[in-house]
Order: sequence, then structure tokens, then C-alpha cells
Amino acid sequence: MPDYIHGGDVYSYAAQFGRMPIDLSANIAPFGIPDAVRQALHDAVAACTHYPDPFCRAPRAAIGEAEGVDPARLYCGNGAADVLDRLAAVLRPKTALLTAPTFAEYARTLAGADIRLHTLRADEGFAVTERLLADITPDIEAVYLCDPNNPTGRTIEPALLRAIAARCASIGARLIVDACFLDLVADGLSRVPALDEYPTLVLLRAYTKLFAVPGVRFGWCMTADTALIEQLYRAGQPWNVSVLAQACAVACAGERDYVRQTVQRIAHERSRLQRGLAARGLTVYPGEANFLLFYAPDPALRDELAQRGILIRDCAGYPGLAPGYYRTAVKTARESDALLAALDEIGREAR
Amino acid sequence: MPDYIHGGDVYSYAAQFGRMPIDLSANIAPFGIPDAVRQALHDAVAACTHYPDPFCRAPRAAIGEAEGVDPARLYCGNGAADVLDRLAAVLRPKTALLTAPTFAEYARTLAGADIRLHTLRADEGFAVTERLLADITPDIEAVYLCDPNNPTGRTIEPALLRAIAARCASIGARLIVDACFLDLVADGLSRVPALDEYPTLVLLRAYTKLFAVPGVRFGWCMTADTALIEQLYRAGQPWNVSVLAQACAVACAGERDYVRQTVQRIAHERSRLQRGLAARGLTVYPGEANFLLFYAPDPALRDELAQRGILIRDCAGYPGLAPGYYRTAVKTARESDALLAALDEIGREAR
Repeated sequence: MPDYIHGGDVYSYAAQFGRMPIDLSANIAPFGIPDAVRQALHDAVAACTHYPDPFCRAPRAAIGEAEGVDPARLYCGNGAADVLDRLAAVLRPKTALLTAPTFAEYARTLAGADIRLHTLRADEGFAVTERLLADITPDIEAVYLCDPNNPTGRTIEPALLRAIAARCASIGARLIVDACFLDLVADGLSRVPALDEYPTLVLLRAYTKLFAVPGVRFGWCMTADTALIEQLYRAGQPWNVSVLAQACAVACAGERDYVRQTVQRIAHERSRLQRGLAARGLTVYPGEANFLLFYAPDPALRDELAQRGILIRDCAGYPGLAPGYYRTAVKTARESDALLAALDEIGREAR
Repeated sequence: MPDYIHGGDVYSYAAQFGRMPIDLSANIAPFGIPDAVRQALHDAVAACTHYPDPFCRAPRAAIGEAEGVDPARLYCGNGAADVLDRLAAVLRPKTALLTAPTFAEYARTLAGADIRLHTLRADEGFAVTERLLADITPDIEAVYLCDPNNPTGRTIEPALLRAIAARCASIGARLIVDACFLDLVADGLSRVPALDEYPTLVLLRAYTKLFAVPGVRFGWCMTADTALIEQLYRAGQPWNVSVLAQACAVACAGERDYVRQTVQRIAHERSRLQRGLAARGLTVYPGEANFLLFYAPDPALRDELAQRGILIRDCAGYPGLAPGYYRTAVKTARESDALLAALDEIGREAR
């Protein structure tokens, strides 16, 4: 089996330690699956005797209404990762620009492309700045941005994102903005550029994180380029989105109050955890999502926490980062306190 | 949206006619989801707060035990169609041999390959015969066989299948045997060649049809070539098989009595439907699965049945077939009788 480096592999943890961890390695909202979404999944079990709708008509209609987007501009996949696979298969960019660090899946899907890395700087708090514009040279065919960026949690200034989108459109480069965590940022979705104004813009979305359903597999993209949408349908099997996932997405699209409350609760806990980590002498970057990147002068911290039942993400392997960088999800006060207490314990033992 | 030609699209039917049809266009066993499988799906909803296991450890262990296969020889996907996509992405055969007719997805996944068609003959009842061996020339890199074949329902003689597997192994060609309907054939699974003896053999399987769960999406392949299994993991996203699908597969693997009973009931109803169709002057081919190919001298029969609430599969578009060929699923007596009654009505009106 390949040695994946992603977070959220509680199964390997359970196999090694014989119990489930407090999982702070996957950035999933901590409030469980909302009742209406859980009920929709149960109700959909009986409908699994049919093949799924290849065109995801029900979720596209529901998301279209919730997001104010024409359903013809939506393509739904088996998680956002499936949409990324299909985008790469269709676009096949010869040259692509990624930030370092960023989510590892972009580079995986772009095997064979000339991948250029725009290095985000620790002394700029790993923010995307105007420096990026100069790296979007005319030979670039695709730019992948993660907003907020994984693992830094930094968002892109709306004016800068529009400038990047305009620059990409002017040279005919696709701009793929992975906004899978943007609905976890206060007013995040209000910041994205309008699809109509940027014909090469593709926005990637998912309900996975906010509604705590990563096990269901549902994600989608939005673009004004409906010819691209057509190509995505042809880039793989027709039945990629299960009956259960389609029902789940329809239910998620109807849960606006839940979104507002969840974002508030996470923002509150993020501030508290940020202060707690900083108070222990760690360098915490000002992320705006439901996770935080921090630096600790201890390259074995992940393993030390794992032995104490807490799983965080070691970011040493990310291009642009180094040993000592870690990402922790923001969950409930109980989980933050467990992390902080374990850090204290490790600190005492090191003395 | 692309104009798919697959069966089972009850959603388009419902959009056109305002009601759900009796669906004989998808070959799903008609007895509903077994209780233990349904319960496993309900139980798995709560576990969807975690990402799925990328390595499908639980279903591989369960299937390995049920099928007597080392789990290291299994790769699980988001339906057999996902496994086909990944096989094509990994193998990238320059030249592939397919039968005509056969399941349309093989050709779709092999875009860019030189696809050679071995035409099955109506006067041989569309059976695969020794004629096929001569078409496996040394330049062929992959042979795709569907056993029992979709849409003919014909199985391949075990001795002939072993000769084909030996021929493929001798020239280094992959032999992909799609056995997704083979567990619906009485003693079907006892007929497949042993993985150990044929290193280039890949067997494709699914629980979809037998356990009536096409909406869940789970399929797998089996091969002695564990290097190929490793490559399949890397050929797409790691989280392709949902938590729900993995739980479903574990439950299906435990249901051996259900399998025996279902196969018997379908065999009984198949004989009855076969006689009923033949009694109405239609040419019925001797299929052994849960569907039957027949010829009717009426190129509009699909639409005429659709207007009467019955969806069958028009096979006019299959390479190797022509207008007038249709496929119907074998379901319960109620559904067979509805089909036969509708055929009688159409016959009376035509007079």
C-alpha cells in the first residue's frame, strides 16, 4: 500500500495503538453530522437499489439555489478529490503554478506537468502576496490556489484574488481556487470573484468539513465555462457520486443556520486555541479556518502527541515547510484543552 | 450533459414521464437490500465523520475471507467502474481486444487505444468461441472479456476461458475478466481460472447487482500481480471508497445464504421469462445471468414499453448489434408478467 501522508488516517492509528485517537489531523467541524443531514442519509439507504443519477440533478438544483449559481455551471464529484482528478485529466496543463506549502493533492493529480512552486514565506506569515502575480508568466496554463490555504489557514485578500483571476484570464490560464474550507471562514464565501467576470476561474467546493461528512464523499466545482463542465462528465465513470452522497448534499444545501452557528463557534475556539499555543511559546500563524499551523522546536512532537492519544498533522513533508511545522484542527474546547495539556506534559518531561 | 446510453437512468424517465418506471433496464436483483446490509449502511452513517480508509482494510479482509483470496491481491474502488478507470489509467494499452457486443464502459476507459473488436455472431448465439483465440495476436496488450457478457448473458466455457488466460499470459497481455454478474450465475464463481496460474489475469467483481446496492458504489478487482494493485492505489484520489460503501461490502461478504437463495430464485424466473418471450415469437438468447437479450422485429419497442411504464434497454447502439435487439432484466414474476402483458398489448395494437 502506498505510504500516504494525509491527515485523518485514524485507521492506521487504531491499528498501531489499539484505540481511536482524538483526531486533530483532519480538519472536520467537531459538532457531528447535523440532524437533517443524518436523517437524509438514513432515508437514502432505501433508494440505493437504483444507480445514482450520473448528472446529479437533485444536488445541482439544491446547491444552485443555495449558492445562487446556475446548476449548468456545477459539476459534482465523489469528493472534491474526484473533481481535482477530473480537472487534471481534462486540462492536462503542461505548466502549472502551485504555492509551497499547499494541499498535496494538486501536485499528485498533475503528474507529468512541469510544476512551478511559488514559495510562501514564513516572514510574511505564509500569506499569498502580490509577489505571486509575477510568477504567473505567459507559459503557465493552470494556477492552483487553496483559499484558505491548507495547511497555513491563510486566506487571500479579495482584491488580490481578483487581480490573480484577471491575470490568469488575460493569459488564458485556468485558475483553480480550492475553496473547500472557505465556508468555515467568517464571510468567506462573500469574498470570491464572480464567475461571470473570470471565464477561466474554477471554484472547488465541498460540504465535507462543515457538515462533518468526509466519509460520504461529495464535492463540486463551479465555473462559467460550461464546456469544461461537459468535459468533466466525460473524464471518468458516470456513476461517481453515490445515491447517499447526492441525498447528503441536498440536505447540506438547506442548512444555512447551521453554517452560521458553526462558523461562529469555530472562530471562538480558534482564538482560544491560538492564545493557548502562543502562551506555550509556539509560533502560531494567523489562520482563519478550522485549523492552525504552528511551529514548535521539536521534530518529534507528532509522535509524542500520538502516544498521548492525540493525532495532529506533521507538516515537515510539505514543500516550503520543514521539521517543526505542525497543523492542528480546531475542534471543541475539550479537544483543545486535551492538546494543550499534552503539550504541557511533554514540556515538563523535556525539562 | 453527455447523452449516456446506459440502463438504469430512472431519473431521466421520471423527469420525462412524471413517475418512476418498472426498471428492467438495470440488472439489479429484485429482492431489495438484505436486512444485514441495510442495517450496516444505517450503522455506518455515524462513522462518516471520519475520512474513509484509503486502503479499504475492513472490506479487503472480509472479501478475502469470503472468497479465499489474500487481501493483498484485492483493490477496492468506487464501483467496478472506478476500478475500470484506474486499470485503463495504469495499463494504458496501445492495443486492446474487446468483443462486440459488450459493456460500453471498457471502450470509454480505453480512449486513445487502438481498440480491436472480435465480433460475436448471432448464429452462434453470441457465445464466445475458440475463434477468439486467433484474434489475440502478439501486439494485443489487453483483452477485456465480460463473463457473463453484458448484454448477451452468455458465459464463457471454463476450459476456453483458461485457454484464453494462458494465451494472454504467454504474450504478456493483460486479461481483464469482468465477472460482475458471475455470482448471479449458478456456480459461476467456481468456473474462474485460479489467479496463481495466470499472472496477467485481473478479475473484476462487485456486490452491486446481487445485493441490490448500485447506489452505494463498491467494486473490486483481484489479481496475483500485487505490483499492479499498488499502481491502482496511486491512479487516483486516496478516498474513493466511502465509509458507507466499505461497511456495505463487509456486510455483503458475510451473506452467503442470501447469495444461494437469490441465484436460485433468479434462475427460476429467468426460465419462465425466457419461455414467455419465446412464446410471443421473440428470439431469446440463452443467457445465464439476471438479464436476457432478445430480438424483436420492432425498432421502437423500447419507447412503446416506456409509454406503458416499463423501462428496458435498447441495444441498437452496441457495436455488433442492430435495431431490434433489447435487453431486459430478470426480476420478480410480477415484473415479468407486466412486461409480457405490455408486449401483448403492443402486439394487439399493431394488428
